[in-house]
Amino acid sequence: MLISILTFQGFNELDSFIALGILNRIKKPNWRVEICCPESSVTSMNGVTVIAQSRLEQLHLSDAVIVGSGLLTREVVKNPEIMQQLQEGLAPSRQLIAAQCSGTLILAQLGLIGQIPACTDLITKPWVQESGVNVLNTPFYAENNIATAGGCLASQYLAAWIIAKTQGLEAVKEAMHYVAPVGEKDDYVKRAIANIEIFL
Amino acid sequence: MLISILTFQGFNELDSFIALGILNRIKKPNWRVEICCPESSVTSMNGVTVIAQSRLEQLHLSDAVIVGSGLLTREVVKNPEIMQQLQEGLAPSRQLIAAQCSGTLILAQLGLIGQIPACTDLITKPWVQESGVNVLNTPFYAENNIATAGGCLASQYLAAWIIAKTQGLEAVKEAMHYVAPVGEKDDYVKRAIANIEIFL
Repeated sequence: MLISILTFQGFNELDSFIALGILNRIKKPNWRVEICCPESSVTSMNGVTVIAQSRLEQLHLSDAVIVGSGLLTREVVKNPEIMQQLQEGLAPSRQLIAAQCSGTLILAQLGLIGQIPACTDLITKPWVQESGVNVLNTPFYAENNIATAGGCLASQYLAAWIIAKTQGLEAVKEAMHYVAPVGEKDDYVKRAIANIEIFL
Repeated sequence: MLISILTFQGFNELDSFIALGILNRIKKPNWRVEICCPESSVTSMNGVTVIAQSRLEQLHLSDAVIVGSGLLTREVVKNPEIMQQLQEGLAPSRQLIAAQCSGTLILAQLGLIGQIPACTDLITKPWVQESGVNVLNTPFYAENNIATAGGCLASQYLAAWIIAKTQGLEAVKEAMHYVAPVGEKDDYVKRAIANIEIFL
C-alpha cells in the first residue's frame, strides 16, 4: 500500500504532516507513506524546506493520494504541466483520493468532484464554489473513493478515512489514540470515528 | 520575538509542525518561528528530511523554545555535545520553554523541570519518572516560564500557551479558529483556552 501526500511549493505544514504522522502509525511491511512533490524539494508557506520522497511522475503507482493544501494552490491549478501530471497520475477508479483544504480546488479543477458535495477551508470556499461544487460547512465528506476535508486539523480525518477503508476501524482507533493528547484520547478517537463512520 | 522549535534526528513530525503552523498564524514583522537543529538537516522518524532554519549555537538568541519529540530522544540526552549546547542556549529566566512528549525528558535531564509536575507521552512517561519528575495524566501543564505537553496533538496547547503569554488570549482564539476543522472551530478554541488559561 503506497500513500502519496501531494505537497506543493507554499504548502501548509499541518495539512501534509498531520496526515503523514497518523498514517505512519500503521506498522506493516508494505505500508509506505511518501511526501510527493513536483520538484526535488518544496518550501512551505512558513519557509520550511522539505526533501521530496517521490515525484509526480510516480503518482500512478499510489494506492491512495492525499492532495495537500497551501498558499499557492491557485498557481498550481494554472500550471498546465503539473495539472497534466495530476490528470495522468490520479485514478479514482483504483485509488483512494483525499483532498485537504485548498487541495479540494485541485480536485474540482480536475473534474474529480463532479456532483458530490465537498469540504474545504473558509478561504478556498468561494473558489471551489466558482468551480460549481456544493461546499459543506462540515470538516469531512466522502463518497466512493473521493474524500475532502476543511480546516487544517481536519487532516486527521483524511488519514483516519484511508486507514478505515484499508485497515478497518480498530486500526483507526489505535492510531488516533496514539496521537491524541493525554487525558483527551477517548474524545479524539470518538470524534474521528463519528466524522468518518457514516461515509464507510 | 524569535521562537525556536528544537527538532532532532528521528523527530516526530506532528510535534514540531503543528506548533510551527499555529505559531505562524501570528502575522507581525518581528515574529519569527524556526526549526532549530543540531545538524544542517534532520530526518524524521518516518523518513522525511527537513532543512534546519537555525542551529543549536543560535539557541541563546531565542525568546521562546519548543523542545520537540522523537524516536531518538534517549540518544539525545546521552550526547554530551548536544546537551552542552542546550545547557548553554536555554535560559528559563528570560525564555519561555515548552517541551513536547519526549522533549520533557530533555528538560528533566537538564534539571529544568525541578519540583514542578510535567506532562509527556505514555511511552516516555517511565523515563521521565525515573528522572524524579511527577508526571501528570493531563495534556498540558505550565508553571512560570516552563510548560510541558503530552500526546502529539497536544502540541497545539504549547503553541497556544506561547501565543497567550506574549500576544494575549484573543490572539490564541484567532489562531486556533483558523487551524481548527470547519464545523468544530468553537470546540477547538474552547478546549485550547480551557487547557492553558489556568496556567497564565
